[in-house]
Amino acid sequence: MKSLASLGEFPFIEAIGRFARSESSASGVVVGIGDDAAQLRLGRNAIVTVDTLIEGVHFRRAWLSPTELGRRAFRVAVSDIAASGADPRFVLLALAAPAAYPARDALALVGGLVNDARSVGAALVGGNVARSPVLALTVTVIGAKGARFLARDRARIGDLIYVTGPLGGAASAVKQLEKKRRGPSASRSRVGAASSLAAYRKPPLRVATASALGRLSPIGAAIDVSDGLVQDLGHVCSASHVSAAIEPAAVPVARGATLADALYGGDDYELLFTVRPGAASQRAVVAACRSTKSRAAMIGRIVSRGPAAVVSSEDGRPLAGGYAHFARSVRLAKGRRS
Amino acid sequence: MKSLASLGEFPFIEAIGRFARSESSASGVVVGIGDDAAQLRLGRNAIVTVDTLIEGVHFRRAWLSPTELGRRAFRVAVSDIAASGADPRFVLLALAAPAAYPARDALALVGGLVNDARSVGAALVGGNVARSPVLALTVTVIGAKGARFLARDRARIGDLIYVTGPLGGAASAVKQLEKKRRGPSASRSRVGAASSLAAYRKPPLRVATASALGRLSPIGAAIDVSDGLVQDLGHVCSASHVSAAIEPAAVPVARGATLADALYGGDDYELLFTVRPGAASQRAVVAACRSTKSRAAMIGRIVSRGPAAVVSSEDGRPLAGGYAHFARSVRLAKGRRS
Repeated sequence: MKSLASLGEFPFIEAIGRFARSESSASGVVVGIGDDAAQLRLGRNAIVTVDTLIEGVHFRRAWLSPTELGRRAFRVAVSDIAASGADPRFVLLALAAPAAYPARDALALVGGLVNDARSVGAALVGGNVARSPVLALTVTVIGAKGARFLARDRARIGDLIYVTGPLGGAASAVKQLEKKRRGPSASRSRVGAASSLAAYRKPPLRVATASALGRLSPIGAAIDVSDGLVQDLGHVCSASHVSAAIEPAAVPVARGATLADALYGGDDYELLFTVRPGAASQRAVVAACRSTKSRAAMIGRIVSRGPAAVVSSEDGRPLAGGYAHFARSVRLAKGRRS
Repeated sequence: MKSLASLGEFPFIEAIGRFARSESSASGVVVGIGDDAAQLRLGRNAIVTVDTLIEGVHFRRAWLSPTELGRRAFRVAVSDIAASGADPRFVLLALAAPAAYPARDALALVGGLVNDARSVGAALVGGNVARSPVLALTVTVIGAKGARFLARDRARIGDLIYVTGPLGGAASAVKQLEKKRRGPSASRSRVGAASSLAAYRKPPLRVATASALGRLSPIGAAIDVSDGLVQDLGHVCSASHVSAAIEPAAVPVARGATLADALYGGDDYELLFTVRPGAASQRAVVAACRSTKSRAAMIGRIVSRGPAAVVSSEDGRPLAGGYAHFARSVRLAKGRRS
């Protein structure tokens, strides 16, 4: 099996160029892969974000096929574009890989990313490849502004809080995968394993839902649930100077996951948004989600600012926790709190 | 000394936000650091590129202060924007760092990048921070198209070949730094050490020169010299379906460096460009470089396509070699050919 080292950097880049050749005819790509920089045609407002997946921190190679890894890297990055209500248009991939990484896997990885990006109208327009002790993918996504820019700081007291799908699946999957890795003794808990692994391997793509929500005037704040529901809702509350009361029983929990996974787990990539109250608004939100293959679930309400950002509506108990990259209390893979 | 782990991911991001707060008032930044994605106002044509520096492959921590590292990461990335004749406007930094990496160093690194970017009119608008076994910086730069897009494929037979400054300094510096690392026995060769280390620690910033060159109609192809003069000129030749004859004696060699460093060394970040022949064109090129603090040196001529992309004009001997990330023949730092 040919390694990246035996294939060489420039032949690899050429292979990517051939792979993504159809991209050069994509809308807005004036100069694509192959020159120093890409030239893109965009509307007046660009929305940009960057995200990194690192081996041993965000994934293990045994957990995902190269195609799944490329797709996951795109979905994780594009999630922030979706949470801003924007339309992803262009993608850049900075791939860092050991010299012994199989060239076939590197191409499959790029393929997974390119095909998934194409499914939402985005084209791979550039990138970088570098030798590295660990496999790492840094994905930049550039989007065109949607109907409006959805931001974290637009929640108002009285807003209803929604999420676009079940939570906790990815956190639960990572726990299962780590157990499996540590030995067969813990492989008993198989309930929901398949769907839960899918939640990790194939995060939801909420571009269409976000785009539809962005066209609804009653939408308040929006964020993607990447670091855990409570933590990300906490970011919305801080930015909006409010608090949130969530009803634990209303939180949609992924099959095989626990409520704790859903509240604190992270890596869900569903959208969280707030909606000005009213029956018509709620109907519009539910319809927008349904028509874009997601399922709106109302999980709580924005309340006036209290001592805690997020509380349980059952007993007022403060909720706190989630994923943080340099947190002290890390257990899993030295970089993930489970 | 506080580590990134004890500071925490979000406080670090907040500190960067404060650091770069003035950026939010930068021209074109509608929404800067702090939300899911940044919202930018750009002209119709965006020019984008991404580059990565990885510890142990592109640098060692002992070689650069954190401020120098941040600046270097920006200059390496922006070099491709300059080579396209574009004006850098926005920067995203994906920082990967060990949990024990000092928070003070992380902030100094961001500061080095932000200040250098600001000096050419670019603002830090977003990024990502993740735990990683090695320190790595991935920098995305988004620019506005200049007078025209300078590309690799515009060289024509008869064009004169220019570079904007001395070459080989960085390669020579890396050799010295590696020798020093291996022990004091080799520390004899000190000639030119100071200026040569500067070439590595503070690569040239050719944004203004490239912008001036882009306004000159006799300019043909352009590229930045990042992987070695011969190799990068080879890319121009391949893209333009021509060959190049370079006069070794005319190549400006950095102080302390050898001709081989200058031809094959890499990491120079000077511009290489071709110019339609003519005394007036040459005068315009020399003046454009001088007025932007670089020095045009004519090093050869584009010739009709031959068996080799790049030859010596002295004896017609083919020249080949340079830096490639996954090349077999790597010696230095397991990732650099010297």
